[in-house]
Amino acid sequence: MKLEKCLTEENINQNLLNIQYAVRGPILQRALQIERELVKGVPKRFERVVRANCGDCHALGQKPITFIRQVLALVSFPELISSRLDIPQDVKDRAKELLDDCTKGSVGSYSPSNGLNLVRSRVAQYITNRDGVPSNPDDIYLGSGASDVIKSVLTLFVEDVGGKPPAVMVPIPQYPLFSGTLSELGVRQVDYYLDEEHDWALQISELERSWREASIESNVRALVVINPGNPTGQVLTRDNIEQIIKFAYERNLFILADEVYQENIVSKPFHSFKKVMFEMGAPYSRMELASFLTASKGWAAECGLRSGYVELLHLQPSVQKTFNTMRSVMQCPSVLGQCILDCVMKPPSPGKPSHNQFINEIRDIHQVLKERTATAYKTFNSIPGYFCNPIDGSMFAYPRIEIPVEAQLEAKKLNMSPDEFYCLRLLEETGVCVIPGTGFGQLPGSFHFRTTILHPKDEFQYMMDSIRRFHLNFMQLYP
Amino acid sequence: MKLEKCLTEENINQNLLNIQYAVRGPILQRALQIERELVKGVPKRFERVVRANCGDCHALGQKPITFIRQVLALVSFPELISSRLDIPQDVKDRAKELLDDCTKGSVGSYSPSNGLNLVRSRVAQYITNRDGVPSNPDDIYLGSGASDVIKSVLTLFVEDVGGKPPAVMVPIPQYPLFSGTLSELGVRQVDYYLDEEHDWALQISELERSWREASIESNVRALVVINPGNPTGQVLTRDNIEQIIKFAYERNLFILADEVYQENIVSKPFHSFKKVMFEMGAPYSRMELASFLTASKGWAAECGLRSGYVELLHLQPSVQKTFNTMRSVMQCPSVLGQCILDCVMKPPSPGKPSHNQFINEIRDIHQVLKERTATAYKTFNSIPGYFCNPIDGSMFAYPRIEIPVEAQLEAKKLNMSPDEFYCLRLLEETGVCVIPGTGFGQLPGSFHFRTTILHPKDEFQYMMDSIRRFHLNFMQLYP
Repeated sequence: MKLEKCLTEENINQNLLNIQYAVRGPILQRALQIERELVKGVPKRFERVVRANCGDCHALGQKPITFIRQVLALVSFPELISSRLDIPQDVKDRAKELLDDCTKGSVGSYSPSNGLNLVRSRVAQYITNRDGVPSNPDDIYLGSGASDVIKSVLTLFVEDVGGKPPAVMVPIPQYPLFSGTLSELGVRQVDYYLDEEHDWALQISELERSWREASIESNVRALVVINPGNPTGQVLTRDNIEQIIKFAYERNLFILADEVYQENIVSKPFHSFKKVMFEMGAPYSRMELASFLTASKGWAAECGLRSGYVELLHLQPSVQKTFNTMRSVMQCPSVLGQCILDCVMKPPSPGKPSHNQFINEIRDIHQVLKERTATAYKTFNSIPGYFCNPIDGSMFAYPRIEIPVEAQLEAKKLNMSPDEFYCLRLLEETGVCVIPGTGFGQLPGSFHFRTTILHPKDEFQYMMDSIRRFHLNFMQLYP
Repeated sequence: MKLEKCLTEENINQNLLNIQYAVRGPILQRALQIERELVKGVPKRFERVVRANCGDCHALGQKPITFIRQVLALVSFPELISSRLDIPQDVKDRAKELLDDCTKGSVGSYSPSNGLNLVRSRVAQYITNRDGVPSNPDDIYLGSGASDVIKSVLTLFVEDVGGKPPAVMVPIPQYPLFSGTLSELGVRQVDYYLDEEHDWALQISELERSWREASIESNVRALVVINPGNPTGQVLTRDNIEQIIKFAYERNLFILADEVYQENIVSKPFHSFKKVMFEMGAPYSRMELASFLTASKGWAAECGLRSGYVELLHLQPSVQKTFNTMRSVMQCPSVLGQCILDCVMKPPSPGKPSHNQFINEIRDIHQVLKERTATAYKTFNSIPGYFCNPIDGSMFAYPRIEIPVEAQLEAKKLNMSPDEFYCLRLLEETGVCVIPGTGFGQLPGSFHFRTTILHPKDEFQYMMDSIRRFHLNFMQLYP
């Protein structure tokens, strides 16, 4: 009797088979399985899994910002605004203002596809304040996290031009949203390597090499820059950004600036690509640019709310119109997500009732980042066979690890890369769940993992101790 | 001085140029402009725009369900659970249960990519209760509205097979999410016409004609069915669904069942494709199927919250694994959206404190649907030159209108289709914003528009009167 599947591995969209997203890949799946085993009482050498796979601060115990959550509650259930509940006036004002911009005062109505007018104006004002350069709300598109709008922008480049397939330059190591999305879209990924020996510097000579080699068979159309770096945590200098802009200008590359960690910086100044472009003057100040931010990172860290934006600069009007139409098919991003982005773009002002608490909350969050980046840097460099660059920002460490040849051979037998084998052993023996460098990219022959570093102090210390103990033991096993 | 754009209409993804989404297209844009003109005091023959472009109940004044909004407020700001606020115990219980399933009790943590375990179990239970057929939570994928998961499922079919390009069968008229998404993906849309002369029946002979003609040059891989119909509002009979399933089985077509209006039915029984397949037994009960539902429709109508699901049945395991990976790159849908889907899947039970209010609220909503479908049907058929089939469900009417030849010529001069011209004139003269049939599809030579019908009674009557007056006037202008 016939019953062949309509969809088989052979006849589905073949691009999809190439997607890899290690952050939620096999290591995490195994970690979740171990968690279930622990619940069932399966004996392990550890009592709990420490998840360090993902930049998800609330999942690590960071508390939500009170102002944001109060606003969220009030826009969800507006009867609370006039209740006897002890809610600060600026929270009530913000909720009313947001509801006024929702059709018939309900967050359950669709918003415009690009987002509520109020929120887009707030984003534009935030950018203007940050850069000292005007921003137009019509250039702002809100999305379900930055991922959503990054995917939409990358979709624009899917087209052979001059008989050559399109390609996009991506830093290595990178955040696998880029590799995964380019795989899905069937756009070639062109790797340029960050210079680990020099604090993950972005060297122009490497951009040139990468572009030159790729241009033989591809049409290189865009350049992705991740600043602050993910997973690498470095912050680009202003000079470096100028050089990158000049490089892109000369080769007519569209810059995608993933700047989602701009509020997660310890000490160095953050320079947006937009600001530097404008300061450089013409012709650079007229270049196309896509710059991304999200409420999932920064001090809000509201990953689950799915909210972000792209500012799209200097697009040809017909291209922007097409982008509008494409975005409109999915209706709009979550209106509650838009509401929290509004709070992030304009937090409580000095003098307002919520201000003090807000300042205390973000001070604590910043303090944790400062301490963890320093501790991670120090600890990793104190483990024999580990090397870690200084961490300027983001919420990750990406240490390089020596893996003995014997262990590499063992990995090969198991059909794994050495870093996957290492991370899996680490997980099985300590419960610590970090993501192998293979998922982000690394120079061939070098091995890394990415770990989130924003756990509570004790948990973080426990994780670092577990990693150290594991590694010393591992080196003895594979001398 | 060079400064060619990186992105031009000529070199961007050419598929995107074909996307049309009339629901948010030029007519709505003009309506929004008119609203701004009215605010500025530009004199018009009407005082306000009546938006009827979009199935957005809250925007038409429908009140949110209290239970849903109270749960939302509590999961957003959990301190409310223990406050002195007068909140029913079942709301508190639900909020706690949801927070227990969020990592570290925060809706700001990412959920699993397919959605919270609790919510997927609830969806599976809802389906099991509805169909009397088991449902597996691992087959459920939550999304940012149904649109999001529909797009993901359609993405699977992008692949030439046997040297022929892929194609998907879509009813005409259809909801333009399908045409828009197929355009973006570069998948051919194969039209099959619903039979307006017989209450928008889905005739198997027409499916056969359509499939046969398309199969000459395409590989027809899937069949979209919209039940209840959008924009047409008919509900398929069980017999008809059986015939459709047999048709799909014989041609090895994957069925996408857009069943998002299943809770918006006036009187006829709803039969899900899944239920009918299982009742038919083997081999039909083993067919692949994607069935969609959303919290944007039904009695909840929480469009702005972006929440929906697909149940994917009988996928080849490797295909399902690939689907999982593709979905994971975008992290997860809004956790707050997931929370309201939970409330929709399991509303307050009899005997619980919220039950009475809930029952009263949904009774009112159902009553409005019942009245408006009847009034729309009656009114449209009383206008000379209008014809409207009975409306079984959804929230739309899709009347056929006669447009005089003179008016058709006038439209042609303006480079518009006759129905676009008609709807634009209607908007300019009355402020009523409906969407031309061109946006949904119609038999060549016939003209329609889609209007939402869920306005408050007075507003609805005003809209119907405006349309009648306009049409009579229009027929005098173009005799």
